[in-house]
Amino acid sequence: MIIVMENGATEEQIEAVVRKIKEYGCEANVSRGTERTVIGAIGDERRIDQEAIDALPGVEQSMHIVKPYKIVAREWHRENTVIDIRGVPLGGNQIQVISGPCSVETQEQMDESARFVKEAGCRLMRGGAFKPRTSPYTFQGRGVEGLAMFRKAADKYGLPIVTELMDVRMLDTFLEYDVDVIQIGTRNMQNFDLLKEVGRINKPVILKRGMAATISEWLMAAEYIAAGGNHNIIFCERGIRTYETAYRNVLDVTAVPVLKKETHLPVIIDPSHAGGKAWMVPALARAAIAAGADGLLVESHPRPCEAWCDADQALSPEELKSLMGELKGIANVLGRSL
Amino acid sequence: MIIVMENGATEEQIEAVVRKIKEYGCEANVSRGTERTVIGAIGDERRIDQEAIDALPGVEQSMHIVKPYKIVAREWHRENTVIDIRGVPLGGNQIQVISGPCSVETQEQMDESARFVKEAGCRLMRGGAFKPRTSPYTFQGRGVEGLAMFRKAADKYGLPIVTELMDVRMLDTFLEYDVDVIQIGTRNMQNFDLLKEVGRINKPVILKRGMAATISEWLMAAEYIAAGGNHNIIFCERGIRTYETAYRNVLDVTAVPVLKKETHLPVIIDPSHAGGKAWMVPALARAAIAAGADGLLVESHPRPCEAWCDADQALSPEELKSLMGELKGIANVLGRSL
Amino acid sequence: MIIVMENGATEEQIEAVVRKIKEYGCEANVSRGTERTVIGAIGDERRIDQEAIDALPGVEQSMHIVKPYKIVAREWHRENTVIDIRGVPLGGNQIQVISGPCSVETQEQMDESARFVKEAGCRLMRGGAFKPRTSPYTFQGRGVEGLAMFRKAADKYGLPIVTELMDVRMLDTFLEYDVDVIQIGTRNMQNFDLLKEVGRINKPVILKRGMAATISEWLMAAEYIAAGGNHNIIFCERGIRTYETAYRNVLDVTAVPVLKKETHLPVIIDPSHAGGKAWMVPALARAAIAAGADGLLVESHPRPCEAWCDADQALSPEELKSLMGELKGIANVLGRSL
Amino acid sequence: MIIVMENGATEEQIEAVVRKIKEYGCEANVSRGTERTVIGAIGDERRIDQEAIDALPGVEQSMHIVKPYKIVAREWHRENTVIDIRGVPLGGNQIQVISGPCSVETQEQMDESARFVKEAGCRLMRGGAFKPRTSPYTFQGRGVEGLAMFRKAADKYGLPIVTELMDVRMLDTFLEYDVDVIQIGTRNMQNFDLLKEVGRINKPVILKRGMAATISEWLMAAEYIAAGGNHNIIFCERGIRTYETAYRNVLDVTAVPVLKKETHLPVIIDPSHAGGKAWMVPALARAAIAAGADGLLVESHPRPCEAWCDADQALSPEELKSLMGELKGIANVLGRSL
Repeated sequence: MIIVMENGATEEQIEAVVRKIKEYGCEANVSRGTERTVIGAIGDERRIDQEAIDALPGVEQSMHIVKPYKIVAREWHRENTVIDIRGVPLGGNQIQVISGPCSVETQEQMDESARFVKEAGCRLMRGGAFKPRTSPYTFQGRGVEGLAMFRKAADKYGLPIVTELMDVRMLDTFLEYDVDVIQIGTRNMQNFDLLKEVGRINKPVILKRGMAATISEWLMAAEYIAAGGNHNIIFCERGIRTYETAYRNVLDVTAVPVLKKETHLPVIIDPSHAGGKAWMVPALARAAIAAGADGLLVESHPRPCEAWCDADQALSPEELKSLMGELKGIANVLGRSL
Repeated sequence: MIIVMENGATEEQIEAVVRKIKEYGCEANVSRGTERTVIGAIGDERRIDQEAIDALPGVEQSMHIVKPYKIVAREWHRENTVIDIRGVPLGGNQIQVISGPCSVETQEQMDESARFVKEAGCRLMRGGAFKPRTSPYTFQGRGVEGLAMFRKAADKYGLPIVTELMDVRMLDTFLEYDVDVIQIGTRNMQNFDLLKEVGRINKPVILKRGMAATISEWLMAAEYIAAGGNHNIIFCERGIRTYETAYRNVLDVTAVPVLKKETHLPVIIDPSHAGGKAWMVPALARAAIAAGADGLLVESHPRPCEAWCDADQALSPEELKSLMGELKGIANVLGRSL
Repeated sequence: MIIVMENGATEEQIEAVVRKIKEYGCEANVSRGTERTVIGAIGDERRIDQEAIDALPGVEQSMHIVKPYKIVAREWHRENTVIDIRGVPLGGNQIQVISGPCSVETQEQMDESARFVKEAGCRLMRGGAFKPRTSPYTFQGRGVEGLAMFRKAADKYGLPIVTELMDVRMLDTFLEYDVDVIQIGTRNMQNFDLLKEVGRINKPVILKRGMAATISEWLMAAEYIAAGGNHNIIFCERGIRTYETAYRNVLDVTAVPVLKKETHLPVIIDPSHAGGKAWMVPALARAAIAAGADGLLVESHPRPCEAWCDADQALSPEELKSLMGELKGIANVLGRSL
Repeated sequence: MIIVMENGATEEQIEAVVRKIKEYGCEANVSRGTERTVIGAIGDERRIDQEAIDALPGVEQSMHIVKPYKIVAREWHRENTVIDIRGVPLGGNQIQVISGPCSVETQEQMDESARFVKEAGCRLMRGGAFKPRTSPYTFQGRGVEGLAMFRKAADKYGLPIVTELMDVRMLDTFLEYDVDVIQIGTRNMQNFDLLKEVGRINKPVILKRGMAATISEWLMAAEYIAAGGNHNIIFCERGIRTYETAYRNVLDVTAVPVLKKETHLPVIIDPSHAGGKAWMVPALARAAIAAGADGLLVESHPRPCEAWCDADQALSPEELKSLMGELKGIANVLGRSL
């Protein structure tokens, strides 16, 4: 950590900073420039509380030199991690498209969905049984019953399932229904108690980016899971909140190359929640794969106009199939498999 | 709700929209303009799922006419609600400044804090026993033990206590220690299961605005609590996330007059988390009261430089006292009590 | 335009709105719902000043039904416009990659650049003679002298040139040097006097999106140029400003499909200014083409480390060549030419 | 400047950085930590181009130690600057409220406005003759004719005038009409050629913050003016662009204490453009003064509902008068004059 003192900082103030650094078990290196004195803390700076340093009189600014995350960092684990989802690999050279409806509605809808998802060439299926909804007055998901329907439909077609966990008290139920991948939604990216709990089990976790989370906060949220012992983490970018009102969110494709540089874990993209409209999905999905994403989470529905929620962003079976063709073409250009 | 059809929408598409509106139990009023056909849905539009409408072929855009929130809306409850916190009124003409340390550290620190908070003229005390921290490797709060210290210190000075609930499984413990006001933090504003639980009890709740939450989402989050039966809700603006990097967050004072127009519930401001630096707090606190806020949540510490977390934003006892004087002057100009 | 009156609006207030609508030459259609009265303005609503309507007592909100732009709108011009740049087509099925250094430095650097840009397969060249710099103390561009160098180097390789116009007083000089495409930079997207001037000439204009401009403001800025008579406009997305600090801007790929739906004019992307680092450029460039962009504006330099400005975002000749190969592959998947 | 090398940077790469620093006339100080090597550049670091450093192989990040602005910095000019506007002081202990209509409409409207602005106790008047409008099809201002009307009306009541300059070619006209304060609008904050021109004259300049400008960019824009020789600069915060859609902009009151710390120049606030609605103006105006602003730019109109533009944000004469009373009360609490 590097600490810059204010112009005119006193010797006493400098000494106080040096003392504090030593309390954290680090060494201090004081360097006096023409306009500012700069202090370097040498040692394991993850122990130093930056805010406690910034609070000391005479301190102007400080900067971390070492990244605050460790287990998820590529710096300490150079090779790409490939997540094994009940035999289906995600990451490395292997791209996966996870598809299915926004929410579980009926057994029939799930059976149909599993069928066309499989036919389109996808090897993993998504579906929501518990739905985070902005209004308390709208449909909140089919709950445990929905989980059972999902499991049954997916099993028929040999598709591992991905579904969202919102409440820590439901974790046992998720394990009971043997959910293959647990999704942590955008509103829960910093629900630290939930992160700690999924860190204790051994299931792959898709960690969606918070609506306005920085790359650094997102990596730290993953570190919460990893610190518990579960390293099977997949990052999922789903659009960030900006000033633009012409679409729901702004898909941040830059996050793909940046995350791939910072972490060894796979990065996928959800083009459906990003744009919020089905007609935007193919363009965003292609952009994601072209940018180097390891997969997609794409909403589809047997009859999009009749979907119970987020109808406007689901692809029809035909649209999904046609999109898969384009994506394979792009994966091929990049020398990857889909 | 008003639905605008695309230029060139067919009669069939228009009829499909009319049919859907009737399915939701509303009446439809079709009006054909020179460039667009516009359909009005008449009746209780809260039942209509806007996304399902937007998904229909030929629909260009739609607009809610009626606000999606009801219990918290001033439209249905004209007078200001005054929240009674164990005899201390907050709202209406009465402004309250809630102060105390970021986190509970020791019994001695809490005793000292309670003493100077009381002396400064504050009638409510804050303190964190469970801390949401970005990194899993930093101090996570004193937990239940901290709650006990806080209760003991505050009781000595007759101060009702405000503290943050992060995990739904801790609610019983909070009731056991008779926490007077439960704070829902910024990262949990849309933790819907947590909102539902605090909606079932009868304790005042401070609902902090999500880091990048819109006014509308915030009102809907409060509606979640209210829908459960608990109407003792206090909104707390704490700075929003923007592109600016010179300070942690941008305090959104405009939220004060806007919320006061939309809701009958009290609105307070947290100037400490907004700016992130103690030296900014007095200016922001004065601005908040001048804008019409019903109170403040201000961090203070007996010895700010030694605080275990967020050291850089705590006021010293002297700074708090001096700020209270200025705030009383401004409250006086506005004809309010503090 | 649709105007929603407040709950409890008086007959007098409703009549005042109707009167105002008629003053603008439109007809009014009053519809009384259970909770709100809604007024529709029928006729050419572009004449109505929305702010003047919103100011009338009793008005709660209003919504435009017709888009405020006309010449640039696809609604009135269904086919894609192809811009002819001295014989090089941009738009429709034809993708173009425009490359060259951030700023003109020396004749030798421009000669080398023109050579490798041509060799890489690009048919248009970019380069800055006048540089908008955040600090008055840094290099401001080679000016007119730079323009001459650029012209000379590009002519040698038959490359039409693209360069930025910042000051309306320099327009004659640009015409004198026969600049082929005038670039309006992000800081000047709403420099309306500059837009009006380039609207009067007959040169293609690249209109960069303002740092935090909405799609709608951007389309209106183009409408300023078009209203003057110049319809040769190319939109260029270059990353928008958000809360994220891990990269300079967030490349908004969603803008590509959305703009292509709203306007018949070509849309290109500048991946260099978006990310701000050369290593991010290939991923962003591929994403742009995959999303359907009609071209790219990519910085390159014979020796990036020695560039006088924005060194960190320029591709080397080899990197540019290798990128062109990937982009051709993706264009091919989409059935387009590059 | 401090340069942090990547983990694993080679000796060669370190030497290349040291060489580059020396080329800029600074000394280099290399310090090897356990995980990273850190290089400090000692000397006048304003000469160093940060981007050129960041481009060197092996560089991970760099940080400026010294602020890039100098003339406007409080660090080099400790006392508050008071701007003299034809005998009316703004800054230091003296707060000024500048009021008047959004745009000049008629001589009568300007005469009335000047009268009530004066009566309300304001000592400076604002009014727009050239209007930056999003649409080319709406009213663009009365132009030079409007300037003449404004001058005449204001002279009658002895009010110095403030008006916006959009086009560098109009500067002579502004000088001819002896405009007392030149306003640079939000869309022109980084119109560097315009900044340079107003830097050459000796009139006070109000520099509005760009819609999404950082504090640092804003200070640098002021430095452009100051570098030309004109130090009579007044910063004006007018709301920033965020994700929130419930109001036009978010008034950034935090900018007030932060700017007052960074610069010796006065800081005023425009509460009218911030919220965009007249009913929000009093709360925002009070917040601004309470936060320590040196003045306000408030829109008012003899008959707001009839205003030709931005009608919805103008105060009536009575509202302005009543607001002035509250603001005087708050100024009094802070020991300042209004």
